[in-house]
Amino acid sequence: MPELLNDPAFVVAKQGAIDLAKYPTRLPGKAKKEELKEKVAEEREKIIKLQEKLYADDRHALLILFQAMDASGKDSCAKHVLSGVNPVGMRTWSFKAPNNEELAHDFLWRHVCALPERGVIGIHNRSHYEEVLAVRVHPEYLMGQKIPGIESVKDVDAAFWKRRFESIRNFEEHLTAQGIVLMKFHLRMGRDAQKERLMERLDDPSKNWKFSVDDIHERARWDDYMKAYEEAIGATAAPHAPWYMVPADEQWETRATVAQLVRERMEAMDLQPPQLTDKQKAGLVEARKLLAAE
Amino acid sequence: MPELLNDPAFVVAKQGAIDLAKYPTRLPGKAKKEELKEKVAEEREKIIKLQEKLYADDRHALLILFQAMDASGKDSCAKHVLSGVNPVGMRTWSFKAPNNEELAHDFLWRHVCALPERGVIGIHNRSHYEEVLAVRVHPEYLMGQKIPGIESVKDVDAAFWKRRFESIRNFEEHLTAQGIVLMKFHLRMGRDAQKERLMERLDDPSKNWKFSVDDIHERARWDDYMKAYEEAIGATAAPHAPWYMVPADEQWETRATVAQLVRERMEAMDLQPPQLTDKQKAGLVEARKLLAAE
Repeated sequence: MPELLNDPAFVVAKQGAIDLAKYPTRLPGKAKKEELKEKVAEEREKIIKLQEKLYADDRHALLILFQAMDASGKDSCAKHVLSGVNPVGMRTWSFKAPNNEELAHDFLWRHVCALPERGVIGIHNRSHYEEVLAVRVHPEYLMGQKIPGIESVKDVDAAFWKRRFESIRNFEEHLTAQGIVLMKFHLRMGRDAQKERLMERLDDPSKNWKFSVDDIHERARWDDYMKAYEEAIGATAAPHAPWYMVPADEQWETRATVAQLVRERMEAMDLQPPQLTDKQKAGLVEARKLLAAE
Repeated sequence: MPELLNDPAFVVAKQGAIDLAKYPTRLPGKAKKEELKEKVAEEREKIIKLQEKLYADDRHALLILFQAMDASGKDSCAKHVLSGVNPVGMRTWSFKAPNNEELAHDFLWRHVCALPERGVIGIHNRSHYEEVLAVRVHPEYLMGQKIPGIESVKDVDAAFWKRRFESIRNFEEHLTAQGIVLMKFHLRMGRDAQKERLMERLDDPSKNWKFSVDDIHERARWDDYMKAYEEAIGATAAPHAPWYMVPADEQWETRATVAQLVRERMEAMDLQPPQLTDKQKAGLVEARKLLAAE
């Protein structure tokens, strides 16, 4: 595939209204599954090497977040793209419904605490964007957050969401200024593909554990979710914090696209091992002498 | 004392240049130590009751932070003003020089992780402001943060500090929107008073452990610190995140002033226990019946 990192078919890098329907749920062309698998393996090898550089360079962290509908393949994508990366240099968090301690804090708190440190790739499976996606579709969830002035769903107005987007934009700007590189992935799966995958979970006993009847309830709100995604992506896309729109009807297409984007982004970081000072270099010469003289 | 919460002699509540020298290091009038002690005890009783309301109300957290020069009485002030508060509803953090894990994250990270949850008073003894105070006076500390583009002290320009102030302002705005009330205390101690207190630490064996020779090195940078305080306070004061300037040459004056300000601020929060819904009220009636029938 040609470079994707700046391809407007895959990247939303500035604020503004967007039309989700314009972003396909399948890749153009007809790559075969075997080709895609091979491509993922190749990209993964490069990512593994780049991650070593990220660790040695020790100035940047890479935060990769996945936001998508249920059964879109977030987990398996992370697994295929990043398996083999030195676990010392990678951490993964899956965000479920917030617990009481998390609800008692501001809505960004648990996501900040889970930020990767310099040298590390952090994966957030779901993220602070749930606060403007699931919570947007279900404003009743906000009652659990006990925000002053938000006594009932009627208090949740446009200004509330505007303020929330501003918090997110400011948060991401701050992270960028500190050297944390953000990649925000939205996996674009069609409604039919979701039906098929949920059916599989019902039909295949080995996949039953993945099924939750809540997924069906959320599925019924599909259009509301798409609207929430459009607004969230349009309100928070920025050159330093772009959204990557990844076709997700076919899982190997998703994995190949994400792998390529991660590899391209890491290459663009110009990672370098730290330069030794003259004093450190002299120390190496001295150490060599001492070891040789033993 | 008359109300202090909106008294410009004590409060900086909007951005702009300030002249620290205008804020006295002693209270006006000549309150006796015994009177001040009594006042602190009275205010403390009120704070203890207000904290119970904060806990029941469960919509707000109160974050109290202290920033001041060494030996200004930050610890002892927190101790005298807040002892007796239910420990379940209070948490204290003292921020020392950042450790390696903290340095590896963005500069707000450890302070976010230490935020109090709703219903709780959090005390930050030193705070994220060290990042624009001690770090401002010692930009060489930034080298430990490994921020991309900041390779040497020469890279630390005015734009860098402007960006850092913006991160802090945005962070505090976000907290406010989530119901976290901020009180930022600067204890104003004169240079002579510091000398006296440091001498005490040297002369009194029971206080020797508090002494650090670093305090003397930092003292030599007094004027640089005052300049850093002026800029930091001027850049981050806001109606929702005011700075309280508290005279600190006499410790009981400090304690009485802080106690009064905290009590006034908590009173202004209009804390209410949660209102029961009709269903909850019916539940109480039912429960009473069941217990009576046992």
